[in-house]
Amino acid sequence: MPFVNIRITNEGATTEQKQRLIKGVTDLLADVLGKNPKTTFVIIDEVDTDNWGIGGESVTEIRKK
Amino acid sequence: MPFVNIRITNEGATTEQKQRLIKGVTDLLADVLGKNPKTTFVIIDEVDTDNWGIGGESVTEIRKK
Amino acid sequence: MPFVNIRITNEGATTEQKQRLIKGVTDLLADVLGKNPKTTFVIIDEVDTDNWGIGGESVTEIRKK
Amino acid sequence: MPFVNIRITNEGATTEQKQRLIKGVTDLLADVLGKNPKTTFVIIDEVDTDNWGIGGESVTEIRKK
Amino acid sequence: MPFVNIRITNEGATTEQKQRLIKGVTDLLADVLGKNPKTTFVIIDEVDTDNWGIGGESVTEIRKK
Amino acid sequence: MPFVNIRITNEGATTEQKQRLIKGVTDLLADVLGKNPKTTFVIIDEVDTDNWGIGGESVTEIRKK
Repeated sequence: MPFVNIRITNEGATTEQKQRLIKGVTDLLADVLGKNPKTTFVIIDEVDTDNWGIGGESVTEIRKK
Repeated sequence: MPFVNIRITNEGATTEQKQRLIKGVTDLLADVLGKNPKTTFVIIDEVDTDNWGIGGESVTEIRKK
Repeated sequence: MPFVNIRITNEGATTEQKQRLIKGVTDLLADVLGKNPKTTFVIIDEVDTDNWGIGGESVTEIRKK
Repeated sequence: MPFVNIRITNEGATTEQKQRLIKGVTDLLADVLGKNPKTTFVIIDEVDTDNWGIGGESVTEIRKK
Repeated sequence: MPFVNIRITNEGATTEQKQRLIKGVTDLLADVLGKNPKTTFVIIDEVDTDNWGIGGESVTEIRKK
Repeated sequence: MPFVNIRITNEGATTEQKQRLIKGVTDLLADVLGKNPKTTFVIIDEVDTDNWGIGGESVTEIRKK
């Protein structure tokens, strides 16, 4: 019964890409640890680039460079 | 001083329902563990059905079936 | 398919109390939002009092007063 | 490589204020623990006041008083 | 710069299995979204079975059946 | 009423260093956003280096190089 939270910046991931992430992570947990896909949860959070910082700067600032 | 994070799909929970969740969880922690409601935090995250997966599929796909 | 994360300080919650928290939160989500208990996850994190701060102080410091 | 998640109510934090939070937390981790800013992540979540509870009430309700 | 948090019960995942999870998730994000592995973080939390509930019961209780 | 979660590897942060993190983050939120320290929560999670990955490798592996 794993729970996976994937956080990415909201820069246009498509519905199809998100489905691939959900499927891929669920399969990985089944392959590596034998976890049952039926009770594997995946939540994707898409975060505004103003709200994500790395190296002391927001991703919005980094993208401008 | 508990902190509770409730994550649900964004499928129309009303303001009144959210208030009941907040009140209910806060009361539960006071009843079971004697935690002070004044310093009990509850955060509800409503997640898009495209961004929540179970069984390797998004909830959007599951709802179509 | 809700996911609930309860964070408390590690100050001796018993197995029985944790079961009551799990049961209570699961019932609450069924009562208020009609969520299926079978796909309701609850995770309890017990945090060392050195690692929890409120008002700018650790709970360890607060407990000494 | 620290990861910091700051959760605040969505009550008008400006882009400039968020940049100060990102910079401030990153500097703090470098100062106190010698952590490399380049691999310090900060994510700010802005939560609707209906979805944040304290003392058994939503912040929306508290703000009305 | 994705951040992934994988939560599993602490039932004996080996160091090698955890490495495969880290590698697998990082590769998945590179494949699906073109994310740079160098700034992909993965954190695995191993949760005591007393502290994880599903269906209103702790995993400890479920395992006994 | 901010909530801050700081995640670092468990590589020997002292009690005093954790207190400085708690104090520093709480002050930052008061300075930048005028948040009340009394209802500012900070939780520090110390994560095993086997359980933290970056660049597709665990920190344990990276530290060996």
